[in-house]
Order: sequence, then C-alpha cells, then structure tokens
Amino acid sequence: MEFTADLSALIDVLASDDVDGYLIDDDSTDSDQRYVSGFTAPDAYQTLVTPDGGVHLLVSGLEYGRATAESNADSVTRRASYDYQGLAAEHGPHEGKIRMLESFLDDHDVGSVSVPRSFPTGTADGLRDRDVSVSVESEGVIEGIRATKTEWEIERIRGTQRANEVAMATAERLIAEADVAGSPARSSASADESLESGVLVHDGEPLTSERVKEEIEVALLRHGCGLDETIVACGADGADPHDRGSGPLTADDLIVVDIFPRDKESGYFGDMTRTFARGDPGEEARRRYEVTERAYEAALEEVEAGVTGADVHDAVCDVIEDAGYATLRTDPSASTGFIHSTGHGVGLDVHEQPSISPVGGELEAGHVITIEPGIYDPAVGGVRIEDLVVVTEDGYENLTEYPVDLEPVSR
Amino acid sequence: MEFTADLSALIDVLASDDVDGYLIDDDSTDSDQRYVSGFTAPDAYQTLVTPDGGVHLLVSGLEYGRATAESNADSVTRRASYDYQGLAAEHGPHEGKIRMLESFLDDHDVGSVSVPRSFPTGTADGLRDRDVSVSVESEGVIEGIRATKTEWEIERIRGTQRANEVAMATAERLIAEADVAGSPARSSASADESLESGVLVHDGEPLTSERVKEEIEVALLRHGCGLDETIVACGADGADPHDRGSGPLTADDLIVVDIFPRDKESGYFGDMTRTFARGDPGEEARRRYEVTERAYEAALEEVEAGVTGADVHDAVCDVIEDAGYATLRTDPSASTGFIHSTGHGVGLDVHEQPSISPVGGELEAGHVITIEPGIYDPAVGGVRIEDLVVVTEDGYENLTEYPVDLEPVSR
Repeated sequence: MEFTADLSALIDVLASDDVDGYLIDDDSTDSDQRYVSGFTAPDAYQTLVTPDGGVHLLVSGLEYGRATAESNADSVTRRASYDYQGLAAEHGPHEGKIRMLESFLDDHDVGSVSVPRSFPTGTADGLRDRDVSVSVESEGVIEGIRATKTEWEIERIRGTQRANEVAMATAERLIAEADVAGSPARSSASADESLESGVLVHDGEPLTSERVKEEIEVALLRHGCGLDETIVACGADGADPHDRGSGPLTADDLIVVDIFPRDKESGYFGDMTRTFARGDPGEEARRRYEVTERAYEAALEEVEAGVTGADVHDAVCDVIEDAGYATLRTDPSASTGFIHSTGHGVGLDVHEQPSISPVGGELEAGHVITIEPGIYDPAVGGVRIEDLVVVTEDGYENLTEYPVDLEPVSR
Repeated sequence: MEFTADLSALIDVLASDDVDGYLIDDDSTDSDQRYVSGFTAPDAYQTLVTPDGGVHLLVSGLEYGRATAESNADSVTRRASYDYQGLAAEHGPHEGKIRMLESFLDDHDVGSVSVPRSFPTGTADGLRDRDVSVSVESEGVIEGIRATKTEWEIERIRGTQRANEVAMATAERLIAEADVAGSPARSSASADESLESGVLVHDGEPLTSERVKEEIEVALLRHGCGLDETIVACGADGADPHDRGSGPLTADDLIVVDIFPRDKESGYFGDMTRTFARGDPGEEARRRYEVTERAYEAALEEVEAGVTGADVHDAVCDVIEDAGYATLRTDPSASTGFIHSTGHGVGLDVHEQPSISPVGGELEAGHVITIEPGIYDPAVGGVRIEDLVVVTEDGYENLTEYPVDLEPVSR
C-alpha cells in the first residue's frame, strides 16, 4: 500500500483501555488488517499494533519475502522463529498457534491486548488460558479510521469507478442493441420463431442476465478489476434488491444493473447502479423512475460534512413517501416500496462505515458513500439509481461520471 | 446447494459437549457456514444447528427471500422479527445484535452454544455477558466433515478443474506462440529493436505475467469461474512460491503457472500448477523439473485411504533429498529447495483439510487433495507440478486431465 494509515485514534484507545497492544488474527478477507498492515495474504496472519505506533507482522515463511517488501510493518517475523511446526506437532495446530502467539506477544512486551469484534474466539480464549488478557474493542475504531479516506485512497476508488463506468456502458450497450423477439423492427437474420415475444435477442440467442454479467466481468478484468457478484435483474427479479438476476431479459421491463467491482491491486471498490428499460415499461414504472431520481437528487442535495447519514436517509424517505410509496420508516416490515438503506461507505470493503440509514451518524469530509434509493414491487419491477460520492465540507464530489437515463443507448 | 450436509459428527459433538446448539456468525467468506446452511450472503448472517439436527438461519430482510428459496435450512428468520433496527437504535449496532441473537437463541431453547474457532470474540463475549454459555469447538468438526466429499461435491470440483484446464491451455498457448525478442526466427513484423533480447513478445508487445493472468481470468470467466489471484511467475519470481509474478516473461527461464479458480455458482475450487520454459532453461533447471516430476509421481503412488498425509509428504521429501536438494524436513529454515507442504484439501476453500504435510493425518476415501511438490532457488527459478486428486480406497482418481511437460505447446 502506498500510504501509511494514521492510527492515532487506535493508539488513543490502547491508552484509554490501558492495554499493551491491538491484535488482529485474520486473512485477506479482513480489510482492517490490510489497512493497518499494508499487506494482504490468502492465509491467516497476525498484526500487532503497539502503543508506540509500531506495526508488527507474524507471517508464514511463504509470505515473509513479500511481507518484508510490500507491507507497512515496522517488523515482520516468520512463524518458524517460534518453531510453529514443532509446537503444532506437539500440541496440535490450534494450541500450537496459541503458544506461538504467546511468544510473539512476549517478544513485544505485550501481556494484554485489545482485539476487534471479529477476532476469532478460539484465539481469544486460547490466549486467555495462557494468561494473556484479551478485551474486545467494540466501537470499531479501525472501521472509523477507515471511513475517512485520504486523497490517495480517493484516487484508488475513483480509478475503480472509471472501470465500473466502462462495464456499465458494456451492459447498457448490450441492452440497447439487442433485437426484440416478435418485433417487426428486428433483423430477420436473427429471427428465431421459437423465442417468446418480447425477449431481448443478441447474436440470435436470448440475451440473459448471465450473459450481460459475463460481459461486465470481462470488461472489468480488462481494466484490472474483479468482482464476485453483479446484479442484472429484470422484472420481478429486480424487485428483490439482493436478487442477482437470471434468465432472459425482456423488453418493456425494468432492468436493474448494479456493479461493485474491486481493483485487484489496490483492493478499493467502486459501486454504481443504473436501471434501464427497452421499449415501454409502462406509466407506473416511469413514475417510479422519476420519483427515485428525485429522491436521489434530494439525498445528494443534503450531503455535506456535519449532516448525519440519518438526515440524508430521511431526505430520500420524504420524497418517496410524498409520492405515495411505502418506506421502512413508515412501515418497518414493508416488503414493497423503499426497503433498504440509502447508502453505505465504500473503500476496502464494499459495505463499510459510515451508514446512510436511520442509525447513520455525522458525515465527515473524506467519507466516500453511496446514494442509492430505490422502489420495489414484484408487480412492477425494481428501480434503483446509485452514485458514489465523496463528502466535502460544503457538499460532495461525485466520483461517478455516468448519465442517469431509463432508456438504454450505446455509448 | 443441491446436497444436504451430513452433520451427524457435529450432533455428536453437541451431545458430548452437552451444549444446546452450534452457532456460526459470519459472512460469505466462511465456507463452514455455506456448507452447513447451503446458503451464502455478502453480509453477515447466523446459522444455528440444534441437537435434533435442525438448521436455523437468521438473515437480513434483503436476504430473506433468497434464503428461504435456496438454503438447506429448516427455518429462516428475519432480523426484523426481533426488531433489530429498534435494538440497534437503542443499544448501538453491536449490543443490538447481541440482544437480537439472544432472542433468536431463546426462541430455539438454546442457552449454551458451541462455536467455531473463528467465531467473533465480540459476539462470544457479548452473549456471555447476557448469560449465554459460549465454548469453542476447537477440533474443527465441520472442517473435518467437509474434508470428505460426496459424489455431488466431487462433480462440482471436477467441473471447476475442467475450466482450469481451459485456462491453463490459454496460458500455455500464449507462452508457446510468443515470439522471442532478438531471435532470428521471430517474425520481423513484430520486431521492436528496443526490446531486450530473450523477452517473449505477443502482438508486438512484451508478453507479461499480467497479460497472461488476464487471459487466464477471462477464460475462466467464460467458463463460469472467478478467481482473485493467479500465479504466472518467471525466473526468480517463481522461486518465491507465493510471488504472483510480474513483468515480461523471458525465454530460457522457468515459468510457474498456478491457477486456483472457484466456480461462481457452486463455490467449489479447482487447483493446478504447471511449469513451462520456452527455449532452453539449462541443464540444472531440467534436472529440477525431472526430480519434481519424480517426486510428484512418488506422492501419487503413495496416495490411498489409510495412508497419512505425512506419509505422502515423506515420499516427496525422499525423492527430493535423494537428488541432493534441501527440504524443510532436513532443514526447517531452508529458503531454497522444497520449502512448502506437499498439498492440501480443496473444496469450498482452496486450502482446507486434510493437510499433506508433516502433520497430515490419515487420508480417507473422498478426500480431495493437491499433490504439488516443487524445488526453488532464485538463481535457477522455481519448478512446481500440481494435480488435484480424489483419494479412493485403493489409490486415487486424478481430477486433472492436463499433460505434464516443460516445453509449452499450443493445445
């Protein structure tokens, strides 16, 4: 990582909790550890932060060279230094690891540690059995530090969002250029009488969610990004905000495209959603699109340092409720209408602090957040519009450069 | 998931530990939870297994529909049933979650739980503060269950390995068909006098690790698989087994290609490594390749149910030591020679039980393991050959259908 995290808030917590260190025991899936250490590895490793601000890594021999070269750590120790293989052979792998950690902590004069909520209970209880004091830092101090991005981090996120725009344009073009089965306008060359009328057709085959997702992912790969999941959800699929979508896309239906790629090198995410419809989705769908767009604009209008995430969320609920749709604010058990939060932080995790929801606290300059209102109903389909923005002292900077338009075009 | 896990070993542990349930609190990155619940979600959810064998999920409202439709669970409960939003507003998100879990456990008459080693300490300590007894199941009972694959699982892994073979062929073809800068044989059309002699050239550009990895990943995507990391490591890069490789590939050097894709739908991994060299890598490199191939054959010869992972690892060490190279068995701090384990289980995780290493226990029919000896030295480069096999009663079935050959060809 090309920046060093400012861990002063963590150091303050160590002092106020009167502990000798902060210990993380996790693998590449833990972004806190990646952030603190500037290092990531597929298998578990440990990071210790001491009250003097020192960052100390304990890694396998396989990772030692890379950790020494790439991490931000002040020291890197190999497991073999504590004869992990011998300890594992004598005590079993779990207890062997505990004893290795005990020695590692001893070497740094650490007899008490604060740990993240996600710290493995097996390790915590094992250390406690060896008379190391382990207490949970339950406020999520590192998540809090991570919420405010440096300029370097914002540039990484912007870069991912650029790749995201290419991928969104790929999806939009496929939808825009598809033929429509049963439509007199489509080229007879790709005619297949067996296709149900209204199905989108590409290269003579039904254009499916799966096909569009594949092209999105290839476009992202070509731009250095990967992702595990993409949403291309048509009709009723799109009314379930977490349905990834499947099967043929159809004309006259709403199609939700939600892409959240991660840059493979930096690890920073982007996030964007657009909703498209080929043909005519009907008056009610168009109205929902307009209301969602107004809610999105109202939320953006609200964003600035000092405002709370709850304020921004309320701005969305106001618009959507005024238009006559349910929200979780009016009905906590609603299954149609606006049935999720307005947004979330984005960084090394696709969902991180701060929260733009009823429990969302004060926004600060440098927070990177999504604004993503939506309106859902299986009978009509789903609409969601999402941009990624940086909070500034007097508003926001939009990291997303992509038109908001229901009708798909080739860009 | 299209199979239901056999949790009888877990139920036995609940009985012998005299606890009311086994609780998992994790997200999509935890394969134990995915295996037990037949469900996966990007954000954290909870799975409770009760002594009657019941599997009970607690999920967000956004996941409720999918969890009900897709999971193996006997019951699915939404967080809203316990007014999570209200609890979070009153007590904060962390304590709100603890109280929600307390109610969820109460509903299933559970006052004491066993948890995996990886269970979050924040949740464990929070439940303990609410008088729920939490003890760590430190043997990894679910990892043990997962180690033995059903026929259904083996078919999934085989499917991923088929995609892997396509990706490996893509990489091998790029290496085989590249021009060599400075070589009289290469086409003058792609000549670039500025390229260092010996650099592999593709479409007039240096053929880099990054380029080959991109083509591997695109090939995998086209076959329904994803992956975060691939290794295409040339020369000294390949001598560090965890170096992913970077920069131009060169003729007369060893190139290690290690691909471990995951099927996006099933979640099951494949794993394969081949080592190639364009031109002549020299006598010592060829000898290392031959020794590695003999070690790989010796390991395969050893594999059958009843043999231990340590036995298989010893078979590799015997061959490599006899040829005069160091292993961690002769020198635990060796940084050249054979400096890792012989293999590992593969399933929903790319590294799982059993271990084919000095601590590896007895192999059972249905274990899916890698056999991947290698010999490393920055001065010569790295050699690694890796297949993925299923242990059977009297040997193994190789899930890998790919030639072992140092000289790259277009397949």
